[in-house]
Amino acid sequence: MTAYTATVTVRLKRGVLDPEAETTQRALERLGFELEDLRSADRFELDLDAESAAAAEERVDEMAERLLANPTIHDYEVEVTER
Amino acid sequence: MTAYTATVTVRLKRGVLDPEAETTQRALERLGFELEDLRSADRFELDLDAESAAAAEERVDEMAERLLANPTIHDYEVEVTER
Repeated sequence: MTAYTATVTVRLKRGVLDPEAETTQRALERLGFELEDLRSADRFELDLDAESAAAAEERVDEMAERLLANPTIHDYEVEVTER
Repeated sequence: MTAYTATVTVRLKRGVLDPEAETTQRALERLGFELEDLRSADRFELDLDAESAAAAEERVDEMAERLLANPTIHDYEVEVTER
């Protein structure tokens, strides 16, 4: 077993409204910053043990499907590195 | 002016309680997944124009200090790439 850290980035799909990001962008503009666009995402960092990086990725993929992301409105990305 | 995308990752400082991450970890464990640890973070992706990558990073750093992160409880990281 090897120790891995997996990073899951959960983003809203294109076309899904993101009022939090809009509010944040407007607040930054009110402070005088110029921005083309701002998107927000959730990031989870998971420490886990697995036989291989591929096995870790498969397991974390399942966690994302079942709990971390909502496939109706979210896209997600998994990245696995050795710890 | 060049177009850049900056990614700001905002994490709770070590020692700051993170009930959302704890709840998520426990929910995953209840589904049968084994985890050593789970940390959650916010991620902002900003599209902006700047003279150089260094100028973009400096500007985004200021946005993080002033609005995106709360320096009392958060650490943050800025990464700039050309768009």
